[in-house]
Amino acid sequence: MNAIIENRLIERLAGAFPRSPNQLNGLRESDAELIRLPGADALIAITTDAVVEEIEAGLYEDPYLIGWMAVMVNASDLAAVGAEPVGILLIETLKPDEDEFFLAKLQEGIRDACTACNLMVLGGDTNFSSQRQIAGTALGTIRDGRPLTRLGCAPGDRLFASSRLGLGSAFALSQLRPKRHRRIKVDYRPLARLSEGQLLRRFASCCMDTSDGVIPTLDELMQLNEVGFIMDRPLHNLLHPAAVRIAASASLPAWTMLAGPHGEFELLFTIPEACSAEFEESARSSGWTPLPIGFVTDEPGLRMEFDDGLSTVDSSRIRNLFTDGGGDPESYIAELIRLDALLRVQATSSTS
Amino acid sequence: MNAIIENRLIERLAGAFPRSPNQLNGLRESDAELIRLPGADALIAITTDAVVEEIEAGLYEDPYLIGWMAVMVNASDLAAVGAEPVGILLIETLKPDEDEFFLAKLQEGIRDACTACNLMVLGGDTNFSSQRQIAGTALGTIRDGRPLTRLGCAPGDRLFASSRLGLGSAFALSQLRPKRHRRIKVDYRPLARLSEGQLLRRFASCCMDTSDGVIPTLDELMQLNEVGFIMDRPLHNLLHPAAVRIAASASLPAWTMLAGPHGEFELLFTIPEACSAEFEESARSSGWTPLPIGFVTDEPGLRMEFDDGLSTVDSSRIRNLFTDGGGDPESYIAELIRLDALLRVQATSSTS
Repeated sequence: MNAIIENRLIERLAGAFPRSPNQLNGLRESDAELIRLPGADALIAITTDAVVEEIEAGLYEDPYLIGWMAVMVNASDLAAVGAEPVGILLIETLKPDEDEFFLAKLQEGIRDACTACNLMVLGGDTNFSSQRQIAGTALGTIRDGRPLTRLGCAPGDRLFASSRLGLGSAFALSQLRPKRHRRIKVDYRPLARLSEGQLLRRFASCCMDTSDGVIPTLDELMQLNEVGFIMDRPLHNLLHPAAVRIAASASLPAWTMLAGPHGEFELLFTIPEACSAEFEESARSSGWTPLPIGFVTDEPGLRMEFDDGLSTVDSSRIRNLFTDGGGDPESYIAELIRLDALLRVQATSSTS
Repeated sequence: MNAIIENRLIERLAGAFPRSPNQLNGLRESDAELIRLPGADALIAITTDAVVEEIEAGLYEDPYLIGWMAVMVNASDLAAVGAEPVGILLIETLKPDEDEFFLAKLQEGIRDACTACNLMVLGGDTNFSSQRQIAGTALGTIRDGRPLTRLGCAPGDRLFASSRLGLGSAFALSQLRPKRHRRIKVDYRPLARLSEGQLLRRFASCCMDTSDGVIPTLDELMQLNEVGFIMDRPLHNLLHPAAVRIAASASLPAWTMLAGPHGEFELLFTIPEACSAEFEESARSSGWTPLPIGFVTDEPGLRMEFDDGLSTVDSSRIRNLFTDGGGDPESYIAELIRLDALLRVQATSSTS
């Protein structure tokens, strides 16, 4: 969840290891690892991710959702590189006295998510511990053409989301606020954008899923590509209706639903201007309407449209805000409100 | 660790999922999953396993060993199907306040094990939890010929181990006995038998690693192949010197070092009589001396050589003994001693 700190740790830990000559991507450069096997033409996309902090924090309580998400977090990484799904391996770490209902619902969530993603369960492992954890490793292939990575966007490229945003934060807010607040039920069941990712491989200049929320994802893409983003569309055109509703009920500014660190598992991607018409036409003919949200600039930083104009959002700070506050939802929300006040002071009426 | 119970759970859990048409092995039929990717000639071998119960039980305390084993448990599964190692993905679930020494030693163990196994770290994920867990997914290829599985042995085949046995039980005994017993240090650092597995692919009729100990492994192979095994070699020819020493110091009969459930990660395999001379010659010329331990019979059951002749060992019962006793080392040991007394009563001087 704590993206920059996790990045630092990953770089430190991974720094100890040499890279494989068979691996196409560098560290952090793509959502899934891209491997060319000796003697094979097709690429393998492989990724591993566990649902553990979300369980421990009480964010995922429903066993069906735990199973669903253990598959989906991995499938979404395959989507972001444009891979065709092949299968998944799962490690289920269960409590020794797990009840039948929990087990049955967990398996149902796993099974339904696999069916939805066209992923076969290839194998796995079962362990017992005082702390539950469901870990997955998803495998996909890229049979022709180039893979999609987080690298490659250039100033002038258009910025899109696969669909409306903010459901990840909305769900987290509804789940984690103290019980004294009225809980509004948010229907959270992300579906990895696999077919969209495969289409994007033909057009997009970079792509990443919003597993850590929208602003942290944009921050990562900005850092990797040494560019900036301008989101010039009004927020009410970008946000999922449930996110608007939840923000209002918590008296939070709507943009905070883009702050993460819990994500909606949509794709954020850039399309070079030259092929954006062909891309939108291809998408529409496959029944998908991508959401234009802005464009790439050469000036670093994330600028977003507020009521009174464009403001620069401190995306690095926002990305670490939850962890810096010790992972407490209430102090995180207080910090977001404080940041919002600063943004409103800064806001100018400049339009680019 | 609780093999039969885990098998039941895996079958129940996995029963909910359809098998992939790209998968060559059925459930439990091989140590790693064997996948033919669409449009590819080579097979992929892929396996996932976590070090969690061993940490929670205090069996693995040394962070170097934890890292080493997280790689080795997976590499050993690749070895047992005769795959060439490609890479590994790791999920490190760490405590939020993990100290520098622990992290450094953990990474060192991972790095050294990967180097020893010719596995590249391809990627991974870091999480934080109150309970540590290191999970791995290892990837290998089988470029030509058939894969090695747990299925295929026939009566008359010769039974081998890749090396001397019992180090897994010896290490567990030395680690888990109450402090009032003198602890003898056991140097436990298994090395996956990868080159041996690749050689075995040309000769062996079945193969499995002893990740759960020798008797549980033989029990699984017997069940899957509907055969029996006779181990007709004297125990002192089969056991690792440290296992002999530890058993004696704990006043345990030596055969209990084969009981598991903690394993030594050797390979147990069978070779058809017709090619056993060629196999032993090939092994020797590669610098490896496999250990003959017995042969396959059509009569189900495991018979072992004791001082006073062959006795039938209740391998299914032994396989579940640790779990049935609630995972308490002292009551497990007491049960083993009781079983030993029964075996001595049963023992006959029959030689086949």
